[in-house]
Amino acid sequence: MKLIESESELRRELEQLGKGEHRVGLVPTMGCLHEGHLSLIRKARQQNDIVVVSVFVNPTQFGPGEDYASYPRTLENDCVLAESAGADIVFHPDAAEIYSPDASTKVEVEGEITHTLCGASRPIHFKGVTTIVSILFNIVRPDRAYFGQKDAQQAVVIRKMVRELHIPVEIVVCPIVREADGLALSSRNRYLNSEERRQAVCLYRGLDAAASFLSSGAEGGTDPERLKQVICEEIDKSPLAKREYIEIVDAETLKPLRHIEKGHPALAAVAVRFGETRLIDNIILRS
Amino acid sequence: MKLIESESELRRELEQLGKGEHRVGLVPTMGCLHEGHLSLIRKARQQNDIVVVSVFVNPTQFGPGEDYASYPRTLENDCVLAESAGADIVFHPDAAEIYSPDASTKVEVEGEITHTLCGASRPIHFKGVTTIVSILFNIVRPDRAYFGQKDAQQAVVIRKMVRELHIPVEIVVCPIVREADGLALSSRNRYLNSEERRQAVCLYRGLDAAASFLSSGAEGGTDPERLKQVICEEIDKSPLAKREYIEIVDAETLKPLRHIEKGHPALAAVAVRFGETRLIDNIILRS
Repeated sequence: MKLIESESELRRELEQLGKGEHRVGLVPTMGCLHEGHLSLIRKARQQNDIVVVSVFVNPTQFGPGEDYASYPRTLENDCVLAESAGADIVFHPDAAEIYSPDASTKVEVEGEITHTLCGASRPIHFKGVTTIVSILFNIVRPDRAYFGQKDAQQAVVIRKMVRELHIPVEIVVCPIVREADGLALSSRNRYLNSEERRQAVCLYRGLDAAASFLSSGAEGGTDPERLKQVICEEIDKSPLAKREYIEIVDAETLKPLRHIEKGHPALAAVAVRFGETRLIDNIILRS
Repeated sequence: MKLIESESELRRELEQLGKGEHRVGLVPTMGCLHEGHLSLIRKARQQNDIVVVSVFVNPTQFGPGEDYASYPRTLENDCVLAESAGADIVFHPDAAEIYSPDASTKVEVEGEITHTLCGASRPIHFKGVTTIVSILFNIVRPDRAYFGQKDAQQAVVIRKMVRELHIPVEIVVCPIVREADGLALSSRNRYLNSEERRQAVCLYRGLDAAASFLSSGAEGGTDPERLKQVICEEIDKSPLAKREYIEIVDAETLKPLRHIEKGHPALAAVAVRFGETRLIDNIILRS
């Protein structure tokens, strides 16, 4: 496996590896790889001839006061893990190579879809994400790109961007990977102290309780307000958890739902803070 | 030459023509082709194996009250002209294929560069342009794309977009083509009545006078304010001309200049209305 730090070297390497005849899979990450990322890399390995993992902590998707500076950087370990999961190339560009000092070009999915859920508290986040993903797509030109369902809104927004800009890439979204107790894997879990970590399972417990309530066929089980209440009650059992949002929305448009209908998957999504640490999780609900 | 109206057919055709080994040149147009466009197509023919001319009147770059509905559509004649200049394919998609009803993804070069000059009176114009050009680049994936210097600000904005999004395409900007009296060719010239047409040469006369004044070495010849005055006086000789702007800016950044310096090309750009018809023209000034 090769660690490549410059765009020109990456283009050369892909050329040499026979990009064009061969399928290229891209797994965009911010590093600090865990089993969630590795599941994406393994999937990419199964479906492509060449697997590129980008490791880039993208400054433009962090708001002021967010954890850009402190976001964990563990490149050496990331390379070991990426290779073990089947990556051919780890692409780790410098921020100065990606963004010139006067860069002002943005790719944005406008509208409610990027301002609901996480977009409400992170107003510039998705514009940063769609811009860096566009840049990475232009550099790597993958046939397929892999994202985790953990960032459900991101996956929906990227799919919409790809469709609307007619980008010839297949977006593959892989399931959430969880700890034994149900906590969704996240690079930010390492910010939690042991008591916070113990209580952090409340996100999953809430979502799981909602899914069980719906599938039990109980009265009110298809009513988003009732399901949000179920989630809320579970989360509130953890005294350290501060709810940011609990929403149940259409899984494709992210629009609020009045009722969960048969054949129309809903997304139950939550964001919860433990001290400075912000965790998100979600589950697909089917009636 | 083939007229292709669907994206999937275009991708298939480019695949069959051996895109990958062969260089593809794209000339994006809104149709109503004239010698200006044909000079771009001929240049593309010289430099590439496959030449695609897109003909698409892009709704999103017209503001309310602008001439989207009345913009001349002359597809049959465009095909004859494009073929004569060496095009292999005219790509003429339907607006409904390019934009889904709920499309909200935009590519935007933010900042003064898109809000000065034409951006001042056309606030959404360049966002529409960069979005459609991105879409066309994603569909055609050209090696080179051709634009006219006539739309100088557009060329600067597109170069910036390409650089900042790391799009692997070479932007080729070709000189303005003019009528015998100096009027820059434009599809909108056909809106002019004969008296307006006669007076429309004032844009070029003004720009040419400024260039002569600068090259004469006269006192004040490198002072943008003095040069704007020279242009203004020429334009005001035409009673039907209503000035929208006369600006002298850095040719790369489009920032206002206090002084034209050796080795730093300046752009003198004008927009003038004749009744409802808006004409633009420009010239590069070198000290």
